[in-house]
Amino acid sequence: MKVLLCGDFEPGEREQWLEALAAVLPQARWLDLDDARADAAAVHAAVVANPLPGSLAGLPSLRFVQSVWAGVDRLLADPTLPAGIPVARMVDPLMTAAMAETALWAVLSLHRGYFVYADRQRHGLWQAHAQQRAGEVPVLVLGLGAMGSAVASRLSAQGYPVRGWRRADGDLALRRALPHTRIVVNLLPLTPATRGLLDANFFAALPTGASIVNLGRGAHIVDADLLAALDRGHVRHAVLDVFHVEPLPAVHPYWTHRAVTMLPHAAAMTDVQSAAAVVADNLRRFERSEALLNLVDRARGY
Amino acid sequence: MKVLLCGDFEPGEREQWLEALAAVLPQARWLDLDDARADAAAVHAAVVANPLPGSLAGLPSLRFVQSVWAGVDRLLADPTLPAGIPVARMVDPLMTAAMAETALWAVLSLHRGYFVYADRQRHGLWQAHAQQRAGEVPVLVLGLGAMGSAVASRLSAQGYPVRGWRRADGDLALRRALPHTRIVVNLLPLTPATRGLLDANFFAALPTGASIVNLGRGAHIVDADLLAALDRGHVRHAVLDVFHVEPLPAVHPYWTHRAVTMLPHAAAMTDVQSAAAVVADNLRRFERSEALLNLVDRARGY
Repeated sequence: MKVLLCGDFEPGEREQWLEALAAVLPQARWLDLDDARADAAAVHAAVVANPLPGSLAGLPSLRFVQSVWAGVDRLLADPTLPAGIPVARMVDPLMTAAMAETALWAVLSLHRGYFVYADRQRHGLWQAHAQQRAGEVPVLVLGLGAMGSAVASRLSAQGYPVRGWRRADGDLALRRALPHTRIVVNLLPLTPATRGLLDANFFAALPTGASIVNLGRGAHIVDADLLAALDRGHVRHAVLDVFHVEPLPAVHPYWTHRAVTMLPHAAAMTDVQSAAAVVADNLRRFERSEALLNLVDRARGY
Repeated sequence: MKVLLCGDFEPGEREQWLEALAAVLPQARWLDLDDARADAAAVHAAVVANPLPGSLAGLPSLRFVQSVWAGVDRLLADPTLPAGIPVARMVDPLMTAAMAETALWAVLSLHRGYFVYADRQRHGLWQAHAQQRAGEVPVLVLGLGAMGSAVASRLSAQGYPVRGWRRADGDLALRRALPHTRIVVNLLPLTPATRGLLDANFFAALPTGASIVNLGRGAHIVDADLLAALDRGHVRHAVLDVFHVEPLPAVHPYWTHRAVTMLPHAAAMTDVQSAAAVVADNLRRFERSEALLNLVDRARGY
């Protein structure tokens, strides 16, 4: 089996994948973009990591694309992705666990005011603030896929009152939940229906002092609206892992905003070992024409 | 029943206690230090919050002291604390939960490098680092009282390999555990046997890159030794809630050290409502000469 392996890899990252994939699927040959196009008739499957648009051009025999990223919004928007072929996204239990850790860290930090203490340390200020019980801090998790569900369970186990909302629940359910929410954790997939969902209306529906944790995609948030809500203190703090443009440009006000805590799209990284096993399982299923796992509904967008 | 209520209260804090105690023990009268001394024969019990040394002088009828602090090291060192009378410390389930939250936040932050990301944000640096699994980060919890045990369970439930150590396990057990530890969480009581336990020898026994979370007492740590270990990078990071002198003096190097995260003795505060119920229960037991709860072994020091 000849498989294209391509994507937006960090230096050395493709080699890590090659090593891990070779260990679990020794019979496969892994081609880069040039080799795949040179041998296009033989390439029936591709393993991709958020590939640049156009990467899948010139591969008329392609019949299956496995993403090693959980989010497939850029992949699905690529016009060279052949229509009608199955696309699977990554559902990696270790990546899911990592996402739950980041969500829990962000919620604990907001609930207990640890970001405030970090700020006070920088200003040489010794001052404690009142302590609330987890049960007094309602959390709303947006998106209830593999990651959203894992995050909701993990937070609930720590005593937070957790509600979940998914797109299919409708706008009214969201508008009703927001006034009772202290912390919003976004894990929605990015689709035309969720783009820009966190806008001025959304923030205005939250009670004063609520906080935002964005672990979904940068484009879920209207940045100007969030900055305005932060600046007037209506939203107390934002923890942001994802941005419209990544890396976030140096001039962006998030970098230096006192009420913004940033991560460099590092909330949950694919665990190469565990994800390689998931890829191998699906490629074996593809070879044997068995049912594929974690398929994307391309019309729905995730 | 006339009860002395005194201690190291923040502004408004004594009034909060009075209100909460009156609600659960309406028959009691709460005296301040002057009133108690003026009516000394009638004062058989005292409720104290880390009182200044000498606070219990001039009360010959005192038969029971209930602390609303979990740590009673300063109280026990007070020569005016009458010998032989029972002393109870606070074991408040909500304070224990708050301590577990802080320990979990600190361990998550160290494990996933969120303090490093905060530093990178301040320097405008977009750079992710490798992600480890919780199962790869062994944690050693020092002290296995109510709080240490709760912290150990909470961390274990998140997937961290957790070992516990208590003073009674002996030095050899500690020396054997340290080389296999990535994060030390200290919740020991402060006694002559634990004072200065975290010294140069202790740090040297840890592997390079280990981190320290001190939620016990400042005097458990030899500050100069910790600073030296941090400066040469042997200890990666320290999260410190407690200090030899509090508030920490403005000139202390911890305030501005890049590898130190400080809290202003705020890891777990007594929850006034829930602690007042614990106090009321013990005072009723005292009145009825029933067995008292959470008694301190004064010879052992906690």
